[in-house]
This record gives sequence, C-alpha cells and structure tokens, in this order.
Amino acid sequence: MNAPATEATVLEPLAGVARQVGSLDLADQLLAMRQWMATDLKQLEEQLCQLDGLSKEPESAKAAAQYLLESGGKRVRPLIVLLASRLGQPVARRDVRDLAVTCELIHAATLLHDDVIDEGDERRGQPTARRVYTNSASILGGDHLLIEALRLVQRSGQPQLLSSLLDTISEIVTAEALQLEWRGRFEPDRSLYMKVIRGKTAVLFRWGFEAGATLAGLSEDQVESLKQAGMALGEAFQLIDDVLDLEGESTQTGKALFTDLREGKLTWPLILAAEQVDGFVDQVRSCMSDQSGLDSQSAVVQTLRRCGALDATRQLAAERVGFAQACVKTLPPGQARDALELLARTVVERKG
Amino acid sequence: MNAPATEATVLEPLAGVARQVGSLDLADQLLAMRQWMATDLKQLEEQLCQLDGLSKEPESAKAAAQYLLESGGKRVRPLIVLLASRLGQPVARRDVRDLAVTCELIHAATLLHDDVIDEGDERRGQPTARRVYTNSASILGGDHLLIEALRLVQRSGQPQLLSSLLDTISEIVTAEALQLEWRGRFEPDRSLYMKVIRGKTAVLFRWGFEAGATLAGLSEDQVESLKQAGMALGEAFQLIDDVLDLEGESTQTGKALFTDLREGKLTWPLILAAEQVDGFVDQVRSCMSDQSGLDSQSAVVQTLRRCGALDATRQLAAERVGFAQACVKTLPPGQARDALELLARTVVERKG
Repeated sequence: MNAPATEATVLEPLAGVARQVGSLDLADQLLAMRQWMATDLKQLEEQLCQLDGLSKEPESAKAAAQYLLESGGKRVRPLIVLLASRLGQPVARRDVRDLAVTCELIHAATLLHDDVIDEGDERRGQPTARRVYTNSASILGGDHLLIEALRLVQRSGQPQLLSSLLDTISEIVTAEALQLEWRGRFEPDRSLYMKVIRGKTAVLFRWGFEAGATLAGLSEDQVESLKQAGMALGEAFQLIDDVLDLEGESTQTGKALFTDLREGKLTWPLILAAEQVDGFVDQVRSCMSDQSGLDSQSAVVQTLRRCGALDATRQLAAERVGFAQACVKTLPPGQARDALELLARTVVERKG
Repeated sequence: MNAPATEATVLEPLAGVARQVGSLDLADQLLAMRQWMATDLKQLEEQLCQLDGLSKEPESAKAAAQYLLESGGKRVRPLIVLLASRLGQPVARRDVRDLAVTCELIHAATLLHDDVIDEGDERRGQPTARRVYTNSASILGGDHLLIEALRLVQRSGQPQLLSSLLDTISEIVTAEALQLEWRGRFEPDRSLYMKVIRGKTAVLFRWGFEAGATLAGLSEDQVESLKQAGMALGEAFQLIDDVLDLEGESTQTGKALFTDLREGKLTWPLILAAEQVDGFVDQVRSCMSDQSGLDSQSAVVQTLRRCGALDATRQLAAERVGFAQACVKTLPPGQARDALELLARTVVERKG
C-alpha cells in the first residue's frame, strides 16, 4: 500500500514543473491556489483514500481500486469540479467534494479497465494494479469504482447530473471500443483521432465543469460556456499527452517513453507527419513490431521534429487552451475564474 | 451472428422440460402463460436484440454484447419484471419493457465480465463472447451494457428504482469480488456461500420484483413481500444450478458438466458433503487439479449421492421456492399471481 496522499499531490508538482521551466510567476500562483483550496484538497484526498467499503473488506478487487487511487495522479478532473463550484453562489463543500470525487473515480475506473485491455505494465511510475492484483481484480475494481461514483451522484440529488454522467460514460466506453478496434494498425485519420480523444478524455473534463457549475447555480448559458471550456481543455490535455509520449521525461510522466508509439496508438503528431512525409506510415508501423529498438523509435522522433509535427501539436493544444480560457472569461471575474485560467495554462505547460 | 431470437426462447424450453419430466399440467400452463404474455415477450426480445447503438457501429465490443444477448438464455429476470408489473394497476407496457430489458442487460453485463474473470470457454452451448471477440471486447461490451441499463432506468423517471439498482449492482460486484478471493481454494463455509449467491444471483431477482411492483403502484408492504420472494427465488435458482453442474445434461444446461467442481467453486452440495464425509475436502481439491479426470469427478458425485447432499440441496431449493410462493400469495389473486407461482415452480423443476 502506498503512503497516504496529502493535498500536496495536486498542485505542488505543477508548481515544481513551473519552477523548472522558469515560470516563477506561475509557480507562485499555483502555490497560492493550493493554499486557497487547501481544505477542499485535503478532504478530497481523504475521501478518495477512505472510500466507503474499500478499506473494510480488503479483497483483491477493492485493494486494486485503492492501490490506483492512492498512487496519486494529477487530480485535474476533481480540481475542475472544485474550482467551477466556486464561480457562483456558495455551495455546501460536502456536495462539491462528492462530485469531485465522482470525477476521479470514473477516471480511475476507466484506467483499471484500460490497463487490462492494453496489457499496461506501468502507470504513474509504478506497476499497474493488474500486475499487482491480477487482471480479474482490476476489472472488478473498475466496476466497483464506477458504481460507487454513480451512487455519489445519485445521492447528490441532481438528477440532471446523473443523466449527463451516464451519457458521458457511454461516450467514454464508445471511444474505448473505437480505439480497441483500431489498435495495432496505424491508420492516420484526423476525424477518428478527434472522436477517440473527445470520448476518452474531453467529455469527462466537460462533465467536471458541468457538475461544479450546476452546483454553483450558474445560468444555463454559463454552464454551456464552461462545458465548452471543458471539451477544449480535455482535447488540449490529450494533445500534450501525445507530445509527452514522444519527448517527455519518464520520471515526470510516470510511463515509459514511446509507449503509444510502440502500441500503434493514433496520436496527433504522427498523423501530421504522415500527411507530410513520404514513407512515414511504414516507418511508424515498423516501430510497432516487437523487434523494433530504440533506434527506430528515435528516428521517428527525429522525423517528427524535422517536419514540425511536435511544435504544431503543441500549438494546437495552446489554441484549445486559449479557447477554454476565453470561455471561462465570460464568467464574472474573481479568484475562482483566475484559478481556472491558471489551471488551463498548466495543461499546456506541464511536463508530466 | 445467431439467428434472431423470438418470443419462443423464454417459456417454450421450460414447457419442454415440464413435458419431459411428465408434468403435463405444468407444460400446458407454461404455454398458456406464453400466449398470455406473447406481445410483451416478443417486444422484449426485439428490444434486447436491437439495442440502441449496438447495431449501428459493429465494433467488437458491441458485437460481443450483441452476441451474448442473442445467444438466448432463459430470460427469467425480465419475465419477473413483466409478471410483477401486472399485479396492480395498469402500466404503460413500454415502461415495463424498459425495466425488463434493464434486468437482462445487467445480467448480461455481469456475464461478459465473469467470463473474462473465470476464463470461461462456453456458455449457453456456444463459445463465450470473449472467445469469439477477445477479452477486451468482452470487458468493454459489459461496460456498455451496464451503462445502457442504467440509462433505461434513469429515463423511466423512477429515481428510487435507480438508487436500488445501483445498490444492487454494488452487491453483485462485492459478491463477485468475494468469489474471486476464494476461487481455487475449496473452503466449505455456509455463510460465505450464502453471501456469494445472494449477491451474485438473488439481489437481481429481488430488484426485478421491486421494479415490476413499483411500476404497478403496489403498496410498500406488497413491494417488500415481493422483494423477499425475489431473494428466496434467486437463492433457489442458484441452488438448482449447483445440482445441475453435478448431474445435469450439458445439452440442456449449455455448459460442460463439473465446471464448478473443476474450478473449485463453492457449491451447496459440496459444503453439505464436506460436513459429513471424512476426507471429502481433499477429494474435491484433487478434482481441481488439471490432472484430474472424469473418474475422480464421478467419484465425487457418487459420494454426494450416497450422503444425500444432492437431495438435500434440491430440498432446500424447494423450501426457498415455497417461501417465495407464500410471499407472492399475499398479493390479490389473479392471472399474474398464478403465473408468478408457476414461474417459481419452474425454478426447481428446470433441467437447464
């Protein structure tokens, strides 16, 4: 079992990153935001790590779920709920935390199933739950978290949020099925890529904004605007993930470099390069074979750099973040709005 | 893809069984019930086989889900919803069908995950979905059906049924986790066994009664009484499954004889024998090894017959069915009540 996480897990690493890249103002702002949110963040971690029913019966399925939840992670999704909920009228913090926890549980549930489907060995710098507790435990652990998350929303007394969460999960599962269908055969296709990342990542960011904004009693237009911010931010988040797979530091990302590349996962830089560089598709496909070594993978990254695909991907992510920030800017000014704009900025500047 | 099922899948096999065992009156009554329910049953099958979103995108995950739904099955759970809904005031059939479909989808979702967890190769006389479409497709197909089922209940506008369904699924997952924990080590334990079968089987029968009875506008006491009937009937159903694993006809049960025994699954006859016969636990454990042949398995069945464990299990199932029938009898007389009593009887008399 990991050491219990504290509120430090959420914003401190981001501040650390900001310091590394020389954004001292960003680092300071993030630390200030952490202080402002301290109680919420601390209680979020406590609730995640002491989920009802998890600690009581330490079966392998529940242990697998607990292991993943305690392995940290960036907690971006619950942070969105917490911040969006501060944009309007005061809300009972308990209700907000329940929905913030929901967001992280849904995310964790999909990871537990994904790792079985993708045969993932490492996540967040540690062996995956399925490696520690078996595939079966990871499947059932995911089922457990999914249902616990839905129960939290049911208890929140916001039936429209339950409806939209069910729709959201349906989109997530559909995107995962689509990704499964295309796994291992690299077919550069922008529209397919966008469908997958919207379903796998962006819709849950959108729901996080919707949940917080609904609790805060914002108007329909305001909620809609924030939902658009969520979609754009989720897309940017995934685009940066694509870049980090190709030139990130595995000590910061918590996963081995070139994992997506070796699995033949469709990523944006690869699509851009395939559109520009003759023979690139074959180059990528040869990376997917077991025999391929680090040399052929590095050669792919060289091509990506040379043709500008990595910069163009970062650029697109920055544009999506800019759009998200513009959506957030339609809300009344204040500390919560500033914090959301700041969070959006960290999505493109992050290194892990 | 299988041939599309018709309304015949539900009650006709039961009538066939009744005829085989010489219960001609039961066979006639079942066929009469089928006629009485014909439209509902036909539409139930249509809705199950043309589930929203399944046919449109034939990805392997959705194909796996569709494959399982079209493989037939006894449809006992939806039948409970349909019949219970006829015990009170008239209800829109569309609403009833949605909840009947829900019950079957939840059941199918758990089977898709179970078959991956248990590495099951055959179900309903056919290769399991995971064998045809991969483990990954079976996991995602299960996730898909689970969410579709919850969306149906959400749309039914009965929030208390959604709450109780979430609680029910939570109990199912907990029971599966418990079973996983004890898999492969045969530890005869009555209380553990009861926990597992209540969670794995009985609670969904209970929810089926609750859903039908709630739609029919029955009183709180009546709903409670029917929920108890559901628990008892579900327990009886599982007890008979235990017997069929040991002396059923695989052509009728759709699964190979001694599957539970080889997997070291805790079943009631084995527990009873372990309490009475010296050395029986070791005898069972040796059956669980890969080297064990049909001879050692048949020897176990001989012991079970000799010590009366199979008869005692059938007897306990009959008692549970008697209790369920007594609960149903507290409702006002009528065709629906008769049909539910009849359905309860088929649970103990079934051969598959």
